[in-house]
Amino acid sequence: MSLNPKRTVAELKELRALTADEKGAQRVAWTDTWLKAREWFASKIKQLLVEHHYDAAGNNWVTLRGASEKALLIGGHLDSVPNGGWLDGALDVLAGLEVLRRIATEYSGHPPITIRLVDWADEEGARFGRSLLGSSAFAGTHSIEADRIRSDRDGVKLEDALRRCGVEISKFPDAQKEQKNAAAYLELHIEQGPVLERMGLPLGVVLGTKGVERHIINFHGQEAHSGSTPMNARKDALAAAAKLALEIRSIAKKHQDAVCTMGSVKTYPGIVTAVVGRCEVTLDQRDLNAEILAQMYREAQEASKRFATEEQCTVDWSRLWSIEPIAFHPQLLELCEQAIRETSGSCHRMPSGPLHDAAEVSRAGIPTVMMFVQSLKGISHNKIEDTKEEHLEMAVAALDRLASKTMTWIQQQS
Amino acid sequence: MSLNPKRTVAELKELRALTADEKGAQRVAWTDTWLKAREWFASKIKQLLVEHHYDAAGNNWVTLRGASEKALLIGGHLDSVPNGGWLDGALDVLAGLEVLRRIATEYSGHPPITIRLVDWADEEGARFGRSLLGSSAFAGTHSIEADRIRSDRDGVKLEDALRRCGVEISKFPDAQKEQKNAAAYLELHIEQGPVLERMGLPLGVVLGTKGVERHIINFHGQEAHSGSTPMNARKDALAAAAKLALEIRSIAKKHQDAVCTMGSVKTYPGIVTAVVGRCEVTLDQRDLNAEILAQMYREAQEASKRFATEEQCTVDWSRLWSIEPIAFHPQLLELCEQAIRETSGSCHRMPSGPLHDAAEVSRAGIPTVMMFVQSLKGISHNKIEDTKEEHLEMAVAALDRLASKTMTWIQQQS
Repeated sequence: MSLNPKRTVAELKELRALTADEKGAQRVAWTDTWLKAREWFASKIKQLLVEHHYDAAGNNWVTLRGASEKALLIGGHLDSVPNGGWLDGALDVLAGLEVLRRIATEYSGHPPITIRLVDWADEEGARFGRSLLGSSAFAGTHSIEADRIRSDRDGVKLEDALRRCGVEISKFPDAQKEQKNAAAYLELHIEQGPVLERMGLPLGVVLGTKGVERHIINFHGQEAHSGSTPMNARKDALAAAAKLALEIRSIAKKHQDAVCTMGSVKTYPGIVTAVVGRCEVTLDQRDLNAEILAQMYREAQEASKRFATEEQCTVDWSRLWSIEPIAFHPQLLELCEQAIRETSGSCHRMPSGPLHDAAEVSRAGIPTVMMFVQSLKGISHNKIEDTKEEHLEMAVAALDRLASKTMTWIQQQS
Repeated sequence: MSLNPKRTVAELKELRALTADEKGAQRVAWTDTWLKAREWFASKIKQLLVEHHYDAAGNNWVTLRGASEKALLIGGHLDSVPNGGWLDGALDVLAGLEVLRRIATEYSGHPPITIRLVDWADEEGARFGRSLLGSSAFAGTHSIEADRIRSDRDGVKLEDALRRCGVEISKFPDAQKEQKNAAAYLELHIEQGPVLERMGLPLGVVLGTKGVERHIINFHGQEAHSGSTPMNARKDALAAAAKLALEIRSIAKKHQDAVCTMGSVKTYPGIVTAVVGRCEVTLDQRDLNAEILAQMYREAQEASKRFATEEQCTVDWSRLWSIEPIAFHPQLLELCEQAIRETSGSCHRMPSGPLHDAAEVSRAGIPTVMMFVQSLKGISHNKIEDTKEEHLEMAVAALDRLASKTMTWIQQQS
């Protein structure tokens, strides 16, 4: 039996029927609906002659042992955000399952190297605000002490929610054992952006994940009565922030794929009859090139100080989070491009703005590459998230070609 | 006994000791602290041979009958915002009290015309969001049906809070009877802005209260992932709003005393990782000239549409509130300027950005003028609100001169 991409689409729909409501997918990690999705996935696995276990961080490993212990890893995540889409994460896992089936069939259950499919635990971090939880445990980049005390909206602690699912956060370091013999990691994902659709391309090679600088910026002016304070006597914190909101766009546009976003603005006192005394904004900057990212950060800081001075305000910055750019493996990028060209005739190389489990695997030193399939309207984390079925099928076929090429490449490495 | 402005300052301090806490004045209308302030005021009145009653809207009238029934009105308000200052409103009433004492003494209790001091009820609207409540009842511009159902933060209805203080909102129209024989109205108030301090002047003549256009403006773009959405593929509602935040300043600065303020910005979804899909802002525009106000409103609307188009967004406006400019009486402006020049040697004519009870009295067709005394740092509605004591004393003296001049003017009218 050969590869059957239509089955992947059918299984995605089956999973949606099981785990989505009228607001979208509800497979939030560590919830009953997520456990139901994993049970359903286990029922699919049972039909194969494979080993199956959960590691110390709750990652779900399906292993088809081969002649060599060297392993090709293919991964994704069944968890979703609340009111999420049907493809984000689930496509990766179910396309991987189809590729695993094809390889098992082709080699009568005994491929030349070992093939492992992984469903990472809690990629989204939707409930506790800590994304890439399972893959960071695998990579050894987790932060147990900072994470165990996190709690959800109802006050349930992360530690307790994990225990309910049979996972002890103190044992997280044991998940690193799964790195053993890992020779390459592949991940297919929807783009979650508009680039491929705008180019009219179904598939793209992902160069890596962009580095991120994420900050809170506070402009301090002077609250004043909107009726009695002349324009030239104001210290308007919003004016300084508005200048920065526009300037970050110029800062980003100097570079090919860079992005800068002001996603939140809060005004204090924030009433119609008062000049804004304090304005708190967020800034999110991303690029695949660490130097460009550092330059953008520097330029935004300088601009904010200039605007604060112009408006007789002061400004301070506080870092929320940052991560360095992570570039995928150059030879796997080549193989990925070949697989895409052979499947769809054309290809685009692009960075990923969003982070993915692949970034953590790459940080663990395992040769990694990702493939993107077009997202309609670039919309994700929403029930209207969608991709044409023909593109989903091409994506499964391209991942399968990439898996074959990577198996050969791994054998050549030995 | 002649005018004693030092007594006014002492009485202001006495009232502060009685009704302020460590956060500032707490004389919010229809609360126990406000009633306490009114009781204290009544004890001051008892020492004078005057009539004293509350009208149907809770305004407190102190009447010194004269030979003529024609009456000079002097007013202010004892109520404050929560955590307010010691002068806003109370200065007006206590300076008026001192002037009343001087006139009563000078004419041995029988002045040629009637003198009436009024403490308006609920000028601030701090608890129920309806300012100028008592004076609008007096003027007949109140809106009983809209106001009676208002409620405070604890769910107490305005109607019930008033009843507890002996005021039936359905009887509000009866307060218009107090207009009878009113020949002029005078009000002294702190400036609540920085203009006089910047000019080095203690006192100013108020030309009138500015008209106000107050709107909520919504820019609608497209929420999108901050990492995966290229800069040129965004419909950033915040960018359009930021352009407007800056443009309203140019619109205002074309005119001498005009002001435009964006006091509140709200971003949706308002998270660090999403391009702003909807941005809701407030706009407050004020000028003493109705044509200029209309022009500024038109220009802001046009600018918002232009910016929305530039950012591939849409925009809609919704009016929160508006009021026409109210110009004070030209001859009383002259008398006020004379009184100020005779007291302090120099004078400035200026519009009031904030509204005052005087605006309602003027709308009732009663010749009206206001006098401003310098505010330190232009700060009001705050416990640090302050004015130099020497300026407070000059203000009482200038109001007294103005009262004398106005009495003569009223007699000449007969």
